[in-house]
Amino acid sequence: MDEGLYIANNLWILIATILVFIMHLGFASLEAGLVRKKNTVNILFKNTMIVSIGLLTYYIIGYGLMYPGGEGGGFFGFKQFGIEEPGDLASLLAASSEGFVMPSWTDFIFQGMFAATCATIVSGAVAERIKLGSFLIFVTIFVAISYPITGMWQWGGGWLNVMGFYDFAGSTLVHAVGGFAALAGILLLGARTGKYTDKGIKPIPGHSLPFATLGVFLLWFGWFGFNGGSVLSADAASVGKVFVTTSLAAAGGTVGAFIISYVMFKTHDLSMVLNGVLGGLVGITAGADLMSPMEAIAIGGIAGAIIPLSVVFFDKMKLDDPVGATSVHLVCGIWGTLAVGIFGSSAGLGQLWIQFVGVSTIGLFTFAFAFILFYILKVTIGIRVTEEEELKGLDISEHEMSAYSSSDTVAYNLNVQ
Amino acid sequence: MDEGLYIANNLWILIATILVFIMHLGFASLEAGLVRKKNTVNILFKNTMIVSIGLLTYYIIGYGLMYPGGEGGGFFGFKQFGIEEPGDLASLLAASSEGFVMPSWTDFIFQGMFAATCATIVSGAVAERIKLGSFLIFVTIFVAISYPITGMWQWGGGWLNVMGFYDFAGSTLVHAVGGFAALAGILLLGARTGKYTDKGIKPIPGHSLPFATLGVFLLWFGWFGFNGGSVLSADAASVGKVFVTTSLAAAGGTVGAFIISYVMFKTHDLSMVLNGVLGGLVGITAGADLMSPMEAIAIGGIAGAIIPLSVVFFDKMKLDDPVGATSVHLVCGIWGTLAVGIFGSSAGLGQLWIQFVGVSTIGLFTFAFAFILFYILKVTIGIRVTEEEELKGLDISEHEMSAYSSSDTVAYNLNVQ
Amino acid sequence: MDEGLYIANNLWILIATILVFIMHLGFASLEAGLVRKKNTVNILFKNTMIVSIGLLTYYIIGYGLMYPGGEGGGFFGFKQFGIEEPGDLASLLAASSEGFVMPSWTDFIFQGMFAATCATIVSGAVAERIKLGSFLIFVTIFVAISYPITGMWQWGGGWLNVMGFYDFAGSTLVHAVGGFAALAGILLLGARTGKYTDKGIKPIPGHSLPFATLGVFLLWFGWFGFNGGSVLSADAASVGKVFVTTSLAAAGGTVGAFIISYVMFKTHDLSMVLNGVLGGLVGITAGADLMSPMEAIAIGGIAGAIIPLSVVFFDKMKLDDPVGATSVHLVCGIWGTLAVGIFGSSAGLGQLWIQFVGVSTIGLFTFAFAFILFYILKVTIGIRVTEEEELKGLDISEHEMSAYSSSDTVAYNLNVQ
Repeated sequence: MDEGLYIANNLWILIATILVFIMHLGFASLEAGLVRKKNTVNILFKNTMIVSIGLLTYYIIGYGLMYPGGEGGGFFGFKQFGIEEPGDLASLLAASSEGFVMPSWTDFIFQGMFAATCATIVSGAVAERIKLGSFLIFVTIFVAISYPITGMWQWGGGWLNVMGFYDFAGSTLVHAVGGFAALAGILLLGARTGKYTDKGIKPIPGHSLPFATLGVFLLWFGWFGFNGGSVLSADAASVGKVFVTTSLAAAGGTVGAFIISYVMFKTHDLSMVLNGVLGGLVGITAGADLMSPMEAIAIGGIAGAIIPLSVVFFDKMKLDDPVGATSVHLVCGIWGTLAVGIFGSSAGLGQLWIQFVGVSTIGLFTFAFAFILFYILKVTIGIRVTEEEELKGLDISEHEMSAYSSSDTVAYNLNVQ
Repeated sequence: MDEGLYIANNLWILIATILVFIMHLGFASLEAGLVRKKNTVNILFKNTMIVSIGLLTYYIIGYGLMYPGGEGGGFFGFKQFGIEEPGDLASLLAASSEGFVMPSWTDFIFQGMFAATCATIVSGAVAERIKLGSFLIFVTIFVAISYPITGMWQWGGGWLNVMGFYDFAGSTLVHAVGGFAALAGILLLGARTGKYTDKGIKPIPGHSLPFATLGVFLLWFGWFGFNGGSVLSADAASVGKVFVTTSLAAAGGTVGAFIISYVMFKTHDLSMVLNGVLGGLVGITAGADLMSPMEAIAIGGIAGAIIPLSVVFFDKMKLDDPVGATSVHLVCGIWGTLAVGIFGSSAGLGQLWIQFVGVSTIGLFTFAFAFILFYILKVTIGIRVTEEEELKGLDISEHEMSAYSSSDTVAYNLNVQ
Repeated sequence: MDEGLYIANNLWILIATILVFIMHLGFASLEAGLVRKKNTVNILFKNTMIVSIGLLTYYIIGYGLMYPGGEGGGFFGFKQFGIEEPGDLASLLAASSEGFVMPSWTDFIFQGMFAATCATIVSGAVAERIKLGSFLIFVTIFVAISYPITGMWQWGGGWLNVMGFYDFAGSTLVHAVGGFAALAGILLLGARTGKYTDKGIKPIPGHSLPFATLGVFLLWFGWFGFNGGSVLSADAASVGKVFVTTSLAAAGGTVGAFIISYVMFKTHDLSMVLNGVLGGLVGITAGADLMSPMEAIAIGGIAGAIIPLSVVFFDKMKLDDPVGATSVHLVCGIWGTLAVGIFGSSAGLGQLWIQFVGVSTIGLFTFAFAFILFYILKVTIGIRVTEEEELKGLDISEHEMSAYSSSDTVAYNLNVQ
């Protein structure tokens, strides 16, 4: 391949990597904004750890599980620990004629940034009552093993890929996977104390909507890399199209959530609109390269409209999700996956069936894996903090510090002095 | 065109698109920081809606109005609803020899991100007392119709372009346009209750200077895409130069505002310096590709120096602008437009006159359009909240929620349960 | 050079420039989060001024001092005020065959963004008690003269470069330099009032850990440009590798600080983990292009582990550093510099010695320069605010405003009305 072209393609994937990285800040800000003040340090701590743990485990084992190479079509495979280090630019250019479109450095780091995002989704859903240690163990194992296995089924050339399943950038592989794991956690943890009472459902507002808004804008910002980078080259026609469909779907999601939440709640609910933006983005992710602009608006608009309905549904089911992660990532992830069979150049009943099979089987595997893992943790070291710790807040009970110190009280406890 | 070169050029415009996108977060953060706590959700809500409404209307009608094609030199034109979808990369490369330097995907999404920014400027100026519904209707119509019409006059090959008007990245077309619309809104809305009293002008400080600062840095960050992307290619000489002039003008604006605000107020006023940064950026925008580094410092420095004078002037005129948007975008936008006739390779009395004609005619059209639109809204559904709602704050009266919940009080009101 | 390739290389350095720029927001957010509420405006003001002052002085004199051209191998040189402006793209392409890999626009603005970062490091360390005016004078002179002189020793082809010193992206040249200057300031300023008492060390927690976390993520984000841009081209093999080593070192730093701080303090200290991320990043910076992934994890992990030890050490020495800048930038900067002699393709006792010589001589020069400069300021206009001003907070005493206004009290004081 021409050197300038190879360099430009590679450059785009590296920039997309940076954009996906900053989605971790987006998630951290969003989730911090939507929990109570007393659990803010905890959520920030978890999200800082997640990205680092995710990168390390993906380097050690995840990448080898997700891209095992070989014949393809399988359910499980493993290539190696670590990554095969590429040669210099000259050897890369030579290899490009054999279809190696980017160095393994680039491929690894782009995929590695994806890996941890599904764990971040879980983080928000189980916030305000999960034990820090148990959560970190869960994340480590889930990201190291479960995410790459189901990822391989499609992106690693596995059986779903051979069957014709389509998931461009991960409505299922990343978002619904995170959502299914979150659902398992919610079921085993139970609701936050005082959320569902005899007198009804008690709304528990987030402590900082500016931070929540900051998070949503950063997520949209990062999504240009998440979807745009999934073209796996800088092809001007494809990346340009993906930018348009991604943006219009987010815009559609905003308006969809705005209208439906106004109809349902008779007010202008910022948190609904913010989740509508994300719903639109999750919805377009599976087919961002297949849809026309109008189809993108429709898919995003429907995703946004689903958000307030889904939030109310989960609350009625007494499935307590402080940040609405299951509505955004699970429900809209499923919707986006199915939408590939309904809209766009792949639409058709056959494709719709395959999309259903894909999201169902990945969902079942993920839910089972996460449920068993959370269950083992629950019966061994426990997954839930005590009620006293929950009431005091996890910042004090797990971290001995407060997110906001207005006086000179102790923030970090120097036991060693 | 060579494939690698075409891809690299297109890649830069796509990245510039992302950078202009994040300016919306910059505006949201800045404006949220500069309003009172009780109006924070409202400003965040508006800015989230604006970017989505802007993208949708620009897709549906704005792009067709702004780039009508044809002979050029006109006052008004319309090509089509939506955009003409381009072919694949091979057809794009073929078309590039005929001067189509990027796919319509890229052109549309880059321009679409610009469109909504002028509405964001209005948002800050009319904050803390405008009705949400009326504002959203205003924004929808203004961005769909007024912005693209005046935009066409210059960037769409219209009469100002033929006349030799120069506005590289939009000191007039984006910033002054937003500022003129803001001025119309301010005039029809009136000042916030209690701002101008018999005893003098009451300063109403913003509720979070950290958020305001965050916003300004993000705006500078995004401005690399705003100005740099306006080269419309990745030409190494031009984009590099624009980065230098843009940065040095911002730096000049910082120092200019620092000095003059210290002389005027005898203190180190952070909000003045922050607006000085933005003033410098707005000022260089019309001629970022024409100026030498020293000229950029001068233009930015003067723009920054104008800020404190302008803020005091508007306050004396009892034109109440909570975030200083008219000083930054209108006054410095006019200054930057005129500066093209004073500094740089185009300087000259003839050019200065044309610059004056350009900013005046666009200003007149925009002000008239915005004034009439706001006026119609005023005499029909009303544009101002009641005094009781204003005192309570728009967050409660329009959204039934608070930006910061320190307890477990209701944040979003689930009327449906 | 091929046009597409030249454009792509240049584009990456420009994007890296933007990323390094946003590190200034990272520093501002981190430092604002780690100081007390009453000193927040002050730190935001300083960091806004620093980037602008840094760009202006680097344009005027710094760039000419740092890249004097000529024979090389020297201790001091000066080419010119300002920069030599390049020609158009055609002349740039012609010059590229002679080894000019990018236009001087790009080279200047990328290096200019680096220059101010070392001053930002000082800003945090001397926070909460330094006089604003003295600090700004210090920063102006330090960035204009000291930073470029030691920078020239290595990156400008000076004596350390000839000797074989290796500092890829500035563990010494930027981070340790900032750290040594910070140390001089801390020594001359003394600790904050009430920090070290007869009863022991009083922890003074930061006022907003969400802002501190935001800052750290933005710094990591920007570091992709800081290290990745230091390849000085978009070479796919090199930039890809640097992304991997940088990310894995940050991840290693996170885990290293997590483990050691837990062992030391028996709690999960967010500020330690955040500084661990930064420690890992500073540590890998000197050899990001030389290390294997496992070596990067080791270097980052050790850097992270050093953080809590170093923070406790400085506190025992009664060297009061509100944000831990000396631990992160000085200690981990030295560690990263030495690590080039211990790990990676350059490892060896000879190299280790050269690394030691490099960091020592640059450290000595910088410390002496900063100490003398701070000392002159101390004995002339003074460098420390009065105890009364310190207790009241610098926001009121230096700026007459508060970072957070919950009521309608005066924020900026319009003395002119």
